[in-house]
This record gives sequence, structure tokens and C-alpha cells, in this order.
Amino acid sequence: MCGIIGVNPSGGIQRYDAGQCAVLGLFAIQHRGQESCGVALSDGNKIILRKEMGLVKEVFPDNEAQKLDGKLAIGHVRYPTKGKSDIKNAQPHVLTTLHGPCFALASNGDIVNYKNLREELEKEGVFFESDNDGELILKYIGFWHITKNYSIIGAIKRVMANFQASYSSLLLTKDRIYAFRDPFGNRPLVIGKTDEGTFVFASETCSLDILDAHFIREVRPGEIVWVQDGQLQSHQENPDMYRLHHHNAQCVFEMIYFSRPDSIVFGHKVYDFRERIGSKLAENETIKPDIVIPVPDSSNFIGLGYAKKLGVEFDLGLIRNHYIGRTFIKPAQTFRDEGVRQKFNVLPEYLNDKIVTLVDDSIVRGTTLKKIVRLLKKNGAKEVHVRIGSPMIKYSCYYGIDTPTREELIASQKSIEDIRAFLDADSLRYLTLEELKNIVTQNEEFCYACFDGIYPIRLYNQV
Amino acid sequence: MCGIIGVNPSGGIQRYDAGQCAVLGLFAIQHRGQESCGVALSDGNKIILRKEMGLVKEVFPDNEAQKLDGKLAIGHVRYPTKGKSDIKNAQPHVLTTLHGPCFALASNGDIVNYKNLREELEKEGVFFESDNDGELILKYIGFWHITKNYSIIGAIKRVMANFQASYSSLLLTKDRIYAFRDPFGNRPLVIGKTDEGTFVFASETCSLDILDAHFIREVRPGEIVWVQDGQLQSHQENPDMYRLHHHNAQCVFEMIYFSRPDSIVFGHKVYDFRERIGSKLAENETIKPDIVIPVPDSSNFIGLGYAKKLGVEFDLGLIRNHYIGRTFIKPAQTFRDEGVRQKFNVLPEYLNDKIVTLVDDSIVRGTTLKKIVRLLKKNGAKEVHVRIGSPMIKYSCYYGIDTPTREELIASQKSIEDIRAFLDADSLRYLTLEELKNIVTQNEEFCYACFDGIYPIRLYNQV
Amino acid sequence: MCGIIGVNPSGGIQRYDAGQCAVLGLFAIQHRGQESCGVALSDGNKIILRKEMGLVKEVFPDNEAQKLDGKLAIGHVRYPTKGKSDIKNAQPHVLTTLHGPCFALASNGDIVNYKNLREELEKEGVFFESDNDGELILKYIGFWHITKNYSIIGAIKRVMANFQASYSSLLLTKDRIYAFRDPFGNRPLVIGKTDEGTFVFASETCSLDILDAHFIREVRPGEIVWVQDGQLQSHQENPDMYRLHHHNAQCVFEMIYFSRPDSIVFGHKVYDFRERIGSKLAENETIKPDIVIPVPDSSNFIGLGYAKKLGVEFDLGLIRNHYIGRTFIKPAQTFRDEGVRQKFNVLPEYLNDKIVTLVDDSIVRGTTLKKIVRLLKKNGAKEVHVRIGSPMIKYSCYYGIDTPTREELIASQKSIEDIRAFLDADSLRYLTLEELKNIVTQNEEFCYACFDGIYPIRLYNQV
Amino acid sequence: MCGIIGVNPSGGIQRYDAGQCAVLGLFAIQHRGQESCGVALSDGNKIILRKEMGLVKEVFPDNEAQKLDGKLAIGHVRYPTKGKSDIKNAQPHVLTTLHGPCFALASNGDIVNYKNLREELEKEGVFFESDNDGELILKYIGFWHITKNYSIIGAIKRVMANFQASYSSLLLTKDRIYAFRDPFGNRPLVIGKTDEGTFVFASETCSLDILDAHFIREVRPGEIVWVQDGQLQSHQENPDMYRLHHHNAQCVFEMIYFSRPDSIVFGHKVYDFRERIGSKLAENETIKPDIVIPVPDSSNFIGLGYAKKLGVEFDLGLIRNHYIGRTFIKPAQTFRDEGVRQKFNVLPEYLNDKIVTLVDDSIVRGTTLKKIVRLLKKNGAKEVHVRIGSPMIKYSCYYGIDTPTREELIASQKSIEDIRAFLDADSLRYLTLEELKNIVTQNEEFCYACFDGIYPIRLYNQV
Repeated sequence: MCGIIGVNPSGGIQRYDAGQCAVLGLFAIQHRGQESCGVALSDGNKIILRKEMGLVKEVFPDNEAQKLDGKLAIGHVRYPTKGKSDIKNAQPHVLTTLHGPCFALASNGDIVNYKNLREELEKEGVFFESDNDGELILKYIGFWHITKNYSIIGAIKRVMANFQASYSSLLLTKDRIYAFRDPFGNRPLVIGKTDEGTFVFASETCSLDILDAHFIREVRPGEIVWVQDGQLQSHQENPDMYRLHHHNAQCVFEMIYFSRPDSIVFGHKVYDFRERIGSKLAENETIKPDIVIPVPDSSNFIGLGYAKKLGVEFDLGLIRNHYIGRTFIKPAQTFRDEGVRQKFNVLPEYLNDKIVTLVDDSIVRGTTLKKIVRLLKKNGAKEVHVRIGSPMIKYSCYYGIDTPTREELIASQKSIEDIRAFLDADSLRYLTLEELKNIVTQNEEFCYACFDGIYPIRLYNQV
Repeated sequence: MCGIIGVNPSGGIQRYDAGQCAVLGLFAIQHRGQESCGVALSDGNKIILRKEMGLVKEVFPDNEAQKLDGKLAIGHVRYPTKGKSDIKNAQPHVLTTLHGPCFALASNGDIVNYKNLREELEKEGVFFESDNDGELILKYIGFWHITKNYSIIGAIKRVMANFQASYSSLLLTKDRIYAFRDPFGNRPLVIGKTDEGTFVFASETCSLDILDAHFIREVRPGEIVWVQDGQLQSHQENPDMYRLHHHNAQCVFEMIYFSRPDSIVFGHKVYDFRERIGSKLAENETIKPDIVIPVPDSSNFIGLGYAKKLGVEFDLGLIRNHYIGRTFIKPAQTFRDEGVRQKFNVLPEYLNDKIVTLVDDSIVRGTTLKKIVRLLKKNGAKEVHVRIGSPMIKYSCYYGIDTPTREELIASQKSIEDIRAFLDADSLRYLTLEELKNIVTQNEEFCYACFDGIYPIRLYNQV
Repeated sequence: MCGIIGVNPSGGIQRYDAGQCAVLGLFAIQHRGQESCGVALSDGNKIILRKEMGLVKEVFPDNEAQKLDGKLAIGHVRYPTKGKSDIKNAQPHVLTTLHGPCFALASNGDIVNYKNLREELEKEGVFFESDNDGELILKYIGFWHITKNYSIIGAIKRVMANFQASYSSLLLTKDRIYAFRDPFGNRPLVIGKTDEGTFVFASETCSLDILDAHFIREVRPGEIVWVQDGQLQSHQENPDMYRLHHHNAQCVFEMIYFSRPDSIVFGHKVYDFRERIGSKLAENETIKPDIVIPVPDSSNFIGLGYAKKLGVEFDLGLIRNHYIGRTFIKPAQTFRDEGVRQKFNVLPEYLNDKIVTLVDDSIVRGTTLKKIVRLLKKNGAKEVHVRIGSPMIKYSCYYGIDTPTREELIASQKSIEDIRAFLDADSLRYLTLEELKNIVTQNEEFCYACFDGIYPIRLYNQV
Repeated sequence: MCGIIGVNPSGGIQRYDAGQCAVLGLFAIQHRGQESCGVALSDGNKIILRKEMGLVKEVFPDNEAQKLDGKLAIGHVRYPTKGKSDIKNAQPHVLTTLHGPCFALASNGDIVNYKNLREELEKEGVFFESDNDGELILKYIGFWHITKNYSIIGAIKRVMANFQASYSSLLLTKDRIYAFRDPFGNRPLVIGKTDEGTFVFASETCSLDILDAHFIREVRPGEIVWVQDGQLQSHQENPDMYRLHHHNAQCVFEMIYFSRPDSIVFGHKVYDFRERIGSKLAENETIKPDIVIPVPDSSNFIGLGYAKKLGVEFDLGLIRNHYIGRTFIKPAQTFRDEGVRQKFNVLPEYLNDKIVTLVDDSIVRGTTLKKIVRLLKKNGAKEVHVRIGSPMIKYSCYYGIDTPTREELIASQKSIEDIRAFLDADSLRYLTLEELKNIVTQNEEFCYACFDGIYPIRLYNQV
């Protein structure tokens, strides 16, 4: 899970604060990655790059963002999936040659056959500085364009033919941005345009909103788009040539958890989708609690939908500390449940003798949720019923989501009843896959592999 | 507005991760100040200090916090009121002498007669490194204790006799922490204790929660408390000796806006107080909107209370970006309403043709609220009715809140109707002072000066 | 041992790159202190300060030095004597009051009765942030000027009456620099003037040279000078009022070791003084070596004078690595004599079978010299005769030089013969005190305490 | 001009502080490059790298150097020739592949046909991160070894066949260091061994000295050496296969200027070589000055040799400030000759009415020397005669020395008399090429291209 942004003023090459706009756009999708961020810019002649470990506001404070002088810009926020936490794995990557063109690339996704492709390239003499998917795609395109004289479009088509999901990528050349998406459509990528004619490519529509750009459409699976003569140009590959099943494999988890609630993703308004999950969960509910509490902030809308449908009180009974660091201190052993305690606190006396339904979006390992249940009970909750807004996660994801191995996925190891006991909850219910598919529009175009193990791509010797 | 924490294991001087606990405690009250933070520790012989500009998680990352080796600790997070943004104004301050004792002090509040007191001390030869209230209190105590041979209690009593509100302070000596609060009780200061016998002093009870400490009681106005032989000791001054009116002047705004909703402040559960504000606002409501939207996160509970009472739908229609920096970039001029756009976004298509009631806690200058109203209307809201959970702020505060001059307070310059027109709202209503006092328990013990101009302390030549 | 600089354009207050000039001046006296450096500037209204740990070129690189905008400037490079290695002990120190004047001070020297004076001030309520002499002098002046209404001249006179050597100081006020020197004249302080009328005060004349300023004269012991109406003004105290013996106590070691060879110090051209030491050493020489090698760079001129007088070959047989860090790595134990090996190397095959006379300026502990002798012999020297350009150092210095305790001074513990044996030298001779005094002009005005133990100031309870 | 070091304990792979030794070795050759430095280490399984901009003592302070844990180490200090001042151009470079071997390389020299070679590789798909020669050699070897299955020796042989001088390089593999030198022998590279059996490869013998390693011999032009079974192994290419003229082209300037005086370079003791230059210059001297002054420190030994031969007084009349930064401040315009003034100062009154011969090693642009002449005259010199220890530099160097274009070389534009007039010297004489060759042993094996334009390699389309 990473986030990408591209800013391309139309009317050819003209200066339009593209760098600052890219920073603003990244800022809106910071939730997709907090480890590093970067922006690459072209002024029409050369490409410059600025990337560092840290949040957008740290790497690009006011004075730094204003220095990003360029006519075209792409940006990236990174959440580590493949590759160590190291500036070398930060994106965008840049490819510079002695005379010829110069590229930068920002990508979101995970390449399933990364090792095979890299080995293949290394045999040709293409060496790598990082373990990062983005560098692989960039040098692959570079190799076919520079060494084998393919056109850029041709080189991207080779990517589509040979790279197994997933990638939503932006390729910056000296005078153009190419946006392309794998034939599976696994990761999102949208197109927007401002009233002034600047095209924006972004992982989520919330980046369009912050730039006052109107949502035009998604980049389609297997499509390459770019701006030429002020118009959006497109090359569409037939995605079915490159995929096992004749369907897209859009990640349903983008709507359940990853994306911001104010975004529109894969044709779904995220907040609305989540409210409908909540509503669906409430349909056959047998427990009528005193209050419904979501795990903030990711489950707020699922909780809202659930409470409304059930007609019980919705409340923000768990307070989340937004100042928390990702790797904050491990306090003295006397303070149990510390990680949760730093992140969440309960409203005082609020739960006393109440039957609580706690709503969360999903369960991965279950350890955090267990601590929250304990926290609620310690603060007076009489009963805690847990409702989960997604099916049981039984399979690892290889397409961009940092899920652990199957052994660590509690739902691949335990029954619902055992999980309930582990959580010390009074009852536990998941949304079923059937119910989920009922909510998803065009549900056959989505990937549910983490729930049902039906991967869109055959996995061979995958780590 | 700042936050303070003190950690004092009982059973005499014994090592107990006091430094790490102080950091955790600060972490819970980070909302009270994000400019700088610091911790001073005593190991029984000497006092060491570590403070820097930045957030707690930045200044005390994991490995740094674990190095804070001491038996007693006090900490501080700073929100700039008096004094420039400079490490010199960061707290705690430390006073070191050649042979004798050594003090550190952390304080929350604003000294009204700062200039007079500093001038007085400077005439005696006591010089200052900062413009900070905390240094003034510390050196004042130092002067009377070291130079004039007062006991520490005696010196603090002199503070109470001469310093005009407000201060809630923690004084660290080599073997003790003294917690004291001005006779007006303007700023909060609570006492807690863990099961293991560690006493905790903190601005808010949420710092007790994160340390698994039980709330004991508040430090009383005019009281000095400390731990001796494992017991809490107290010296109580008669606060009426030092104040104009025979009442406390607890800041009502702590409950309306400053404090975390999960804290208990001045005897009020904050979330509950805010819900009752919302409920009170709804009592005589004439407009029945389609939806109620609070300005997140500060007005969430006011909004909840309002929506429940009115029986209309409550929704989180405004999404807040928590990754925002305090001094983030000013984007290109083409993007209007930029500050608001970076901070808030609206759920797509959610407001279409709806009558919205927007709930906010207060209006200071009105500029941000005006932008939010515009944002809602641009996104389809048919009508936007604004409801404010506090009376009109017509007067500046001199006791620790960073309010602007009267000229900048919109409510001191305009009528309600003019403010409504300025905001471009369809209607506007404030909570009345009468209504507010109805909600406040023991309301005569509170300060409402920002609403009614009745200051608890006579103001003379105040900047 | 520290270095100070003051830059005061005449013709009243006018901008003249005073800050940049101060930085250049510090740069020339960097050999007097490499731990920290700083510059304080006045623009006529307020005083600003910039100081940091590190070398002048690190703290004030090009772009930083150009930002030092002020009409008057003082600067300091620090070599740690009293006080820990800490930015708090870096100079200049600044004293700021609420309304009144504002001072900065830079000082070179060591106050013998520091503790008594600080204790006295602390009893009055004057507290300190550092253990530094400069802060003591500054706040002492501040106390008597601000609290006791003394004039500035009057307050400095009190310093002269009460502070026991040594200090050569520069006091910066908003519109003036006062340069003053203790009645013993222990540390140097010179006055220069450029053709454009800028007055420069500096520890050594090499700072005048770099600024194209002509040497005017020294600040006299017990004198206070300042610039007024474009003219140098002076107040001369009778130094005999404040000293035990009716003589100056100028540090003879400034000429032997501390000062740069191109400086004029206490009326002596340093290079010339050192050549005369060498010449004097050679007068009664019985050993005629094949070559004379000085320990570079400090003993180069002593070696030159010695070789010329003796009529033997002078050579730079030891090469010094100028890139050495002060706290460089301790290499693996297999490499003996490591510190010396990093700093010095011998010309290959140069010493083979030669009789070498090694010339050094002084012996403190003797450990480094022992390693150099071993290095020379290992590289083929048949005999190594050591000649020392100063008498035996038998007593600690309390006036600004960082000598160790008497126990660590090899000459206070061993006879010449024992030292020779320790060094493994074939012969060893020191310059005698008699010989030294023969070279010094007005030799009764100098301090030789490190050689003869006759301190100009009575020492009581000195650490 | 850069410096390299390799540390290879014999007896197979065993831990022996190789990293710390490499740092010490770099420290001794810091004069060959101050821009950046780095060390790459192998522990037998993987290669780690640490490099940064700055001096050795800054990049590897005590605690950092001790962390360099590895069994084999190579290091580099960089003086920028080709490529911008950027961490990307710092060496060593490292090549990492997915499965296979892993290399690091440090190189000294300049590849004349860099562009052609890089273009050739880029056509194959080998892309570059820097403009640095070292990366080119490394990836070239990587390409032929990994892609084309050449042995490492075979790949290095290809380097020798295709790379046109100059390079003295160290290739680190997981379990070995290969040292090799171009067939022209343009840059130095020596082999040493400690008593404990550690082999050391270094640019200069002074790195051997600091490690107590004995000088064994030079790596020969066209030779590849490595350590195997505790013994030095060698593969010798016939260098004549790869060079135009059947001679080495050792850089004579290494002895004149670059190398440390205590090093042995190309069979010459550097200090001795320089003294002989001075002596040769004095042979036909017609001017008998009062004193001889060298430009310190580079010309000290030329000056010594000159003065001895002539029988006049040698003196260190110019003092050099070793604390100068490379990019120090440009002071106010009123201070003329500023660069020189920061770097050099004259002994006071020393030159009065004296006839001075100023000795320098070479003249490039002549601007600094002009300022020194002016400085001497301003300080009283009656006459200043300039003697230069090398022939006129009329041609640019393409093999590792950062000389400017011919237009900027004063000797390619002006006659000796015009240069004398430009310098405002009373007379000027250069060493002739004939005289120089007389001093050089085996003089036909050296490159004098900067003097006579006879390049050992044909130059085609060279920038």
C-alpha cells in the first residue's frame, strides 16, 4: 500500500507550481504511506528528484515545497511492503543516461514475479540499487526503450505482458507523464482535471479534491494514458491477454479499510460502502446492545451504518490519540496493553454496566482487538459483542498489502468460536463473503483472495 | 495552554522508570501543546534536563525515552502563549547553584503581572534567559529560598501572595515534587496513584489513564501538595486572601474546547459536558435539518448531543486530515480556501440538496468557519445553519489561552446577524451564557471573562 | 586559553560588516580554541547571538557569516578550561533584561576566586546557567550596573577590584564595546585600526593582519578602552591597587607556545622570541648533531634558531598530519604509539645512522615526546638528543592554561636524568629560567609561576 | 586525485579490525581528497558500505570507526575530478545482485574514454547512478562477470584492454580484494604487510606507515594482485598490448606536488625528490637573496633544497592557517587579497628591506601567487624573486588531476616575462623540463604531458 500523484498542466509544458501541487496531493494520501515520500520534477530539459524518509510535512515543509520548481511532477508516499526501511527503497526512482532520455517512476503495488524478472534483467547486465518494485519497473522500461529501441508505449506494453500484478504507476519523462495500470486493475488510479486545465493522476480522489480538480474517470486496467496537445490520450491493451481469468481483480480491501472515506474508489463512494457494510451486518443481528462503538477512525462509518440500521445509539466511546508515533516507546512492563493504551482511551464512566457492540473493519492477528475488548470491560462494559465488517482473512496478500504469513493470520488458524474466546468477547460475528459481494457493485471484477484464496495470478515459488 | 506531568514513586526515592512514565503522560496531553516538550529528572543527587522543539514522539523516540534515568520526573508540553517560539522558552526550566539545592519547574498558565514581577526581580539582580512564565516562577522561588532563606513552602506561599493567576505548577527538587495551583484555580491539575504506589500529577486525567493511575482528586486552588513517607502531604493557603472575588475562577473553556473528551476536568466529564451543550443548543431549536455535522474533532460530542436531542441524523460528513502540519505550505493562489482544504474534506455527494446544521464549539475570528460553510455549499448543501456551543467570545483572555486582541475577535466587533452574513450561513445561533451556566456544576466557581469581560483579576497596563 | 575579537567601526554606529569581520578575526585565532565559537552583534537597538560547538568554518560557513548583520560585533573561540564541554559554556554570553540595557561578553582567562564570587552573587539572587568565567563577569557587571546603579565603567572597576586574574574581556552594549584587561595583564589583548577607521580588539595581532588593521598598542593592565566620537577613549585604573606584587604578570607561555608565530604578543615578535630561545639553547651546546628536527609546528622556530646558531642542518624530518581530529579513533592494540602515529610520521630513510637533536617547546606529561623519540629511533636515528625551549614545568597554572595537576607534571615528580631515562633520550636539556628571563624584555613584568611556583595571586582553596 | 586503501588480513578470512585499519589508512592520505570518504567491508557473506560527504574524522569519528565490523575492507577519499560534488559520486561503489556475488570498488584516476564506455554499456542496459569513474569500472566488471560469465580476473583484463588510463583500483568481493593498476601505471598503488600478516594496499606509503606495515613493492602497471592462502598472488598482463608507447606513464606531478613528503612514490622518496628539485633550481642561480621562503606546506622541501644549495638562510616566513575551510567566506570587498590573507600571513617586520626568493612548486592560473607576491612586498620585501619547482604547465591533464582548460593555464597563454609582469615579481624562473628529467630516475617511464603535451593516450572527443 503506497500512494502516488502526478500533476500535468495541459497546454504543453508551462510552469504551474506542479511541484507544490504534487506535495499537496501527497498530503491528502499520507494515510497510504508514512515511511518516506518524494517528488520528481521535469522542467522540460532535465529531471530532478527530492525524497527522504519521513512524513510529507517533514520532508516538504513550507519553504522546501516552494522550491520544487518544475513543469511536470510525480510524487509518492511509501508504506513498506517489499524491501527494507531504507531511503534506497523510497520512490520515485530516477533513471539517468549519458545522452538520452531520463525517466522517473512512482508505483503502487507489488510485483508477484519480482525475483524472476530481476534475475532476468541482471543476466542482461541491468543492476539494481534497491529491492523496490518501482526500480524494477523503471529499469525494465529503460532496458527495452534504450537498449532494445522499443517506444515508451511499447516498453510499457512489455511490462503489461510480463509483470504479474500489481502496479498502478506514473512514468515521468522530460516532457510527459504516462499513467498506467496493470491488466488486473488491482490498485486504484484516477484521473482529474482542474478548471485551469491541469491534469492530475492520483491513487485516490481525495487528492483531486485538495487540488480542486474534478474527477474524470479511472485509468482502466491495461490502459496507458498521457496528456498531449492539452488532451488526454489513451492506449488500451486488451487486459484479457495478460490474465488468467477474464476479470479485473480490483482490491476490495481498498474500500473496506485502505482508502480515505471521502474518496471514490473503483466506482464506490468509500464512506457509503462502509455504511452499507454496517447496515448489512445489522440485518440479521440478534444482539441489541445499549451502545455501538466503532474502533476509530477506520471503522467509524461501518459503526454508523450498523447503529443506524439497528436503531441503537452510536457513540465515539473510544478516543484515539492522533499524535501517536508508529514506533513509540515500549513502557515499563507494569503497564499492560500498552500499545493500545497509547492509542486508545475510553470515555470515563461511559460504559458502566452497558452492553456494548464493538465494530471493527477486520481482524488480522487479533492481538490489538483483544486488548481493546479488555479495555472496554475493565472500564465497566457488561458485555462486549464484536462485529467485523469483512469476512475472515485466511490468506496472505501478494499484491501490495502488507499482510503477514498465513500462520500469523488468526482466521486461518482458529474457528470463529476460538477467535471469540481468544478475544474474550461475548459474541463475535464476521460479515460473510456472500454479504460482502452483495454490497459490491460488479462484484465479479474484484479480488477476494485474502478471504477465499482464489488468487487472480498463479503463485509460483513466492516468498 | 500547556500540559504538565509529574511522576513520583512513593516509598521514598526508588528507581521506577519515572522518566519513561513522564514521557507517556506527556504523550496523552500532546493536544495541549505541540511546540516543544521536555522532561527534568532527579536521581536523588542531581537534576538533569532534556528538552527540545517538536512533538513528544520526535523528542523522545523509543531509545531516547528509555535513557531518561531518574527517580522523580516532571514534564511539559508547550503551546506558545507568552514568549517567542524558541528553545529558550521550552520548559521545564532548571535552576542550578554552585553548592546548594537545584530546582526544575514546569508550569501551565499565564502570569498577568509578569512584567512587574520580573522588573522587581531584575532590580534585585535576578536575570532571565527567556520570556517564559515558568522561569519567572522558578527564579522567584529560588530567590526567596536561597537568597532570603525562606523554606520551599514559604517561597511558594510568596508566589501565591504576589503572582496573579494563572499557574498550575510542578517544582522538582532533588528528592521531592511540589505540585501547586494558583488561588483562582484557573488551570487544572489532578492527582492520581497507581496500584504500585506511584503518585502522578497531571493537567488532565487522560495522563492518569495511560499510566493506569487512579484519579484521586484535584490539587485545590491555593494548595501545595507533595509526597512524603509514601503519603500525600498538603499545605492549604486560604485562597480568599489572594483574590478579588471570593470564588474560584476555573476556566470554563477547558471543558468546552481544550481538554480531551476522555478527561475529567474541574469535576466534569468532558465528553458528557459537551453532549449536554449540544443537547441544550437543541432545546429551543427551530430548524430541523436533514443532517447534523460537527467540525471534527473538537465539536464531535457537541454535535452528537445536539443530533440525539433533536432526533436527526448525526454524521461525520467532514473528514479531518490528521497528518496536517501546523505550518504547512501555502499553495498556489489558484486554490482558494487552501488552509481549510488541507485540513478538511467533505464526503462526496453526501450533502446534495440537504439542509445541514454545522456544529462548532466557538468562533474566534470566524475565518475558518466561513471557509467550511463555503465548502459545504460548494459540495451541494442546500442550507447551512451554524450552531455554536459557547457564548460569543468578546473579550481577550490573559490567563493562559492564546486569544487575539479584542479587535480581532469577530464577536466583539459584529452583531450575530452580521456574523451570520459574514459566514454566509443561513442561520446562526450561539449558546447563551445563561444556558452555559445552567450546564456547569457550581457555576459560580468558573471564569467566563472571555464572554462577559468580568475578569477575576484587575488588569493594569497589560500588554 | 581562548581567543576573543571585537570589531567597532568608528564614526558612531554604522553598518560595516562587523559580523563578517569578527568571523574572519576568529578564524585567525582558531588555534586558541577549537571547541566552540560564537559572535554577538548589536545593531544599535538589540543584541543578537549566534554560537555553537565546532570550528569557525563549521559554525560560520560562507552563507552563515554573511547573515551576521550588525554594527558592532564581539566573538569568541573556546578552549575548555573551567566548565564542561557544553554549549552552555560557549561564549559570548548575553544578558537581557525586560526594559533596560542588554550586554554580551567574551572573555579569555581564568578567575582564581570564581567560587567565592559566584557564591556571593548567588546569595544575592544572581543565578547562573553555566560554569563559565565569562558568565560570571557578565552577570557581576550586570548586577552592579542594573541593581546597584553603578555606571558601566564603575561596574568594570568593581571587577578589577574583586576578580583575581585572569581576564581579557570584551563587553558589548547596544552602542559600544568596552575592552578591558585584568590588572595583572595576564592574557593579551591588542588594539588595531583599519584605514577605513574600524577599531579592532583581539587576543593576537594576527587577527588584525587578516583584517588589514594596523597594530596600535595593547590594552594596558587595569585599563578600560572604548570608542567614542571616532576616538579611542581610556580609563586607567592603578593596577597596583589590586595586586600583591607591583608588577604585571604577563604569561610568558603565550610567547613560548600559545600564540601564533606571526603575532606580536606583550611587545615580543613571537617567531623572533622563539628563534632566540633556540639560539640561547644552542649557546652552550656540547652535542653537535647531524640534523636538528623540531616537533612541528609549535617548535619550528625554536628549532630554526637552534640550528642556525649551532651551524647544523635544520630539517622538517617529522611530518605533521593537519587533518587529525582532536578525539580520533583509538586503533587496534597491535598498533602501538597510535596517537603519535596519526599525528606524526618520519621521512623515510632520512634518519639512518644520524645523530638527531629533537627540539620541543616544553614537556608537560612527557608521554607524547617519549613516543616521538621511539619513532625516531625505530626509523634509524643513532642518537636522539632532546632540547626543550622552556624551563621545567613544575607547577599548575590557574590563570587560563589547561595544565594538569602537579602529580601529572613529570618535572614536578622526576629529576632531569629520570625524565631523560623515561624518554629514552640520549641526552636532555631544558632552557633554564635564567636563560629564559634573559630573552624576555622587561622580564619582571611576566609570570613564570609554572616554572618557579611564584604565583602573582595568593591561592586559597583552589580546586 | 583521490586516495584508496585496502586491508586484507592473511590466513584466510578472519576478523582483524579491517575497518578501523582502513579508516586509519584513509586518514593518512586525507590530503588526496577532502570531499567525501567511505569504507566498504566484507564479513565473508555480505558487503556493507558506509560513505558520506566530509573529512575522515567527521565521517568516521571514534565511535563510528569502531562499528565497522568486517574481515576485509577497502576505503576511498575523494577529490572531485569527474562528476559533481554529490554523495552519489562518493566511493566505494557497491554492486548487489539478487542471488549472486556482490562487489565494491574504490578507484583513483580518470578514464579518458569514459563516455564511449558508458554509452556502450548503456546500450546493453547497464544504467548508472553517478557520473563517477569508479561506478563505471565496477559495473563494467559486473557486466562481464555476471552477464558474460567472465571470471573476475578475466573481467579485469577486459578493463585493461578497453579502459584508457588512468585507474588504480581495489575490487572487494565477499572473500577477496583485487588490486589492479592500469597498463600506464599512471596513478600509484603500493603493497605493504604488517608483522602480523595483514596485507595493505594503498595510494601512498604513508598509509603503510600509520599501520606499521612494511613496504613490499608497487602494484605493477597492468598487474592484478590478491591474497590467497596467506600469499600474494599476481596476474601480470603485458602492458604494451594496451598502450601506444612502450613505456609507463607515471605521473611526475605525484612527486612534485600531490604526494605527502614522507611517502615513497614510483621509487622516489618524495621529500628527497623535492629537495633535489630545489637544489637543481639553485644550480645556475644568479640572484643571491637575503632569505628563501617557500609557499607552505607544499613547497617546503623544494625551498629547503634550494636554500641549502645556495647557502642562504631558509625561513618559514609565510605562516599557513591550517584551520581554513575549502569554501570559506568571501569577506567584505574592502579586504583585498582575501583568500590569500585567510590562508597565509607574513611574520611581522621579518621581510623589511630584504631581497626575498619565493619558492613555489608550480603555477596553474597564477592568481594566488600574484597575491602572495603582493603580500610580501606590502610587508617590506625589497625584491621578490619567484622560483618554480616544475616546468611551465601548458597542457590540461586528463588522467586524474583537476587542471583547468588550456585557456586558464597562464603558461599556455603568456611568456615567462609576461607571467613575471603579471605576478609583479622582480624575476621569475621555472625548472626546465630537461632539469626535471635529470632528477627523475628512469625518466622515460613518466608522463610529462602537462608540460610537453605528449599524451600517452590519443585523445579523441574529450570534454
